Amino acid sequence: MPELRKDPLSGRWVVFSTERRRRPTDFKVGLTPHASESPFTHGHEHLTPPEVFAIRPNGGPHNSPDWQVRVVPNRYPALRVEGELIRRADGIYDAMSGIGAHEVVAETHLPDVPFHRLPHEQIVRVFEALRSRWEDLRRDGRLKHLVAFKNHGALAGATLRHPHSQIVATPFVPPSAATKLDAAREHFARTDRSLFQDILDTERRGAERLVAQNHDFTAFCPYASRAPFEIAVYPSFQSHDFGRCQTHDFWQLAEVLRDALARLHASLDDPPFNMLLISAPLQEDALRWPTLRHDFRWHIEILPRLSVFAGFEMATGCFINTVTPEEAARHLRQVQLPR
Amino acid sequence: MPELRKDPLSGRWVVFSTERRRRPTDFKVGLTPHASESPFTHGHEHLTPPEVFAIRPNGGPHNSPDWQVRVVPNRYPALRVEGELIRRADGIYDAMSGIGAHEVVAETHLPDVPFHRLPHEQIVRVFEALRSRWEDLRRDGRLKHLVAFKNHGALAGATLRHPHSQIVATPFVPPSAATKLDAAREHFARTDRSLFQDILDTERRGAERLVAQNHDFTAFCPYASRAPFEIAVYPSFQSHDFGRCQTHDFWQLAEVLRDALARLHASLDDPPFNMLLISAPLQEDALRWPTLRHDFRWHIEILPRLSVFAGFEMATGCFINTVTPEEAARHLRQVQLPR
Repeated sequence: MPELRKDPLSGRWVVFSTERRRRPTDFKVGLTPHASESPFTHGHEHLTPPEVFAIRPNGGPHNSPDWQVRVVPNRYPALRVEGELIRRADGIYDAMSGIGAHEVVAETHLPDVPFHRLPHEQIVRVFEALRSRWEDLRRDGRLKHLVAFKNHGALAGATLRHPHSQIVATPFVPPSAATKLDAAREHFARTDRSLFQDILDTERRGAERLVAQNHDFTAFCPYASRAPFEIAVYPSFQSHDFGRCQTHDFWQLAEVLRDALARLHASLDDPPFNMLLISAPLQEDALRWPTLRHDFRWHIEILPRLSVFAGFEMATGCFINTVTPEEAARHLRQVQLPR
Repeated sequence: MPELRKDPLSGRWVVFSTERRRRPTDFKVGLTPHASESPFTHGHEHLTPPEVFAIRPNGGPHNSPDWQVRVVPNRYPALRVEGELIRRADGIYDAMSGIGAHEVVAETHLPDVPFHRLPHEQIVRVFEALRSRWEDLRRDGRLKHLVAFKNHGALAGATLRHPHSQIVATPFVPPSAATKLDAAREHFARTDRSLFQDILDTERRGAERLVAQNHDFTAFCPYASRAPFEIAVYPSFQSHDFGRCQTHDFWQLAEVLRDALARLHASLDDPPFNMLLISAPLQEDALRWPTLRHDFRWHIEILPRLSVFAGFEMATGCFINTVTPEEAARHLRQVQLPR
């Protein structure tokens, strides 16, 4: 049973999951070598735990081939749904049982396609699968927050080459999300405006950090990017909860995201990156953020991993970036994409 | 001129230093290949900027060989002392000029000795050199905080094999330190006790996470270790400011640190790690933490980098650890060290 422990100095929770040690790739950096070994090609469904969601346009039983998107529990889960959520003092420390969810989204059955080269409608299906998991996991009132993320490339922590994302549900709102929710709440209290909208207004007007946009979404290199070529994607309309999006929104999002990722891929020759989807707390009763429907927006962060976060970053929580977002955005905009 | 920019959502500062891009190893992971190319062997003093500090027991001019420890400005500095510290609004964002310091400490002239195999008195000299830099940089009232860190191994961000540490002074107290200072202040306000002392009492009494100790210092695997085999070293006496330590303290510290690092080296076959030295704000007028002399302690964190911090860590600020600190400490204690 995994355990969650809180560090009293930094306030951050750590998931202790000794089971995850059984992962064949733990303690080394590298991708599984052969696509033929991928658990996410059609016919390999028996290599994964039973699915929790799949899109099968032609019907067919659970765990059969011919799915388009498939979601399964992680074979080496950091957190588990099974068990009781017990919060306890451990002497002077704080702990709770490792309740949560850890799932893997197979984004396609093809073992080696970059995300941005998936057909537009396939990316929409991936978002539909995520939304479905958002809705299902939300029913478990113990789960307070959900993040989805994609690790692409070994230096970004991927251990499997097959295009996939992961979902982790936690029984608390994690510090990165809480800090942003706090900032948005305070900005709203002071100005009656959404901080996200203020940022968007600045970026769409100034345009020097813009990467791609359509009517509903904006991709830009953030003013204080942590790493060269970091890209943020915000909805241009008020939308706090990814799980409440409409399929129409996903078509719009897929367009901007494919555009931004294609530019990143071309600019840096398929760099390793993490793609993060940050949304509002899962449950409606997030008392600490009473105005979040007005002030917070779900958003996507794409963080290229071209260098190692080292002692400075670990000691300070700050980052050193050698490329300004204005430079990065200029490069990204100049890429000629095939039409 | 480097620039500092603040991210409005996360509150973290990012250093923009386009000069650092000239580093030969930027954008790839790897160590300089040949020890003969090291800028920190005797006779190679001309390969570095002029030194800011050195220990030469036999005297000798600045920048001559036969030094024992030598501190030089980083050739590719993230922050610079030269210039004026200007804080400004950049539209809706916050920025300031990249004032600070970024120095490199050559811990020995020998190009390839693990830190824990340096003679005891040499490690004391390294701490004396750090203390000297602490005192010198403190005189610049613009500099609010100083961290020292060591990146060992390519996966920990080292780009040079020669044993060295780095010092970075910042014109603000960085978020990681501020969070700990806040936690210590709040614990003290509530209990009249130091949180660091409470942790030490727990760890020294329970002993299951202890790694090494003497009268003045304690090394243990923290209750909520971020990564397998993380080790913290605290002074067992009240001491908020590393720069105020006595040389006697350094002898005691070197003993515990060498012991802990030797155990780590033997347990995991010379793993990559970051070693971080976190101390109180540089200036005495840290108004936000009026009780820090009573509640805060400088400390060292040793963070092995056996796996990549990936999407989950980036999205949440939390960590997944596959080895409990109790297990790690047991392994570390069982190592038979040569006497």
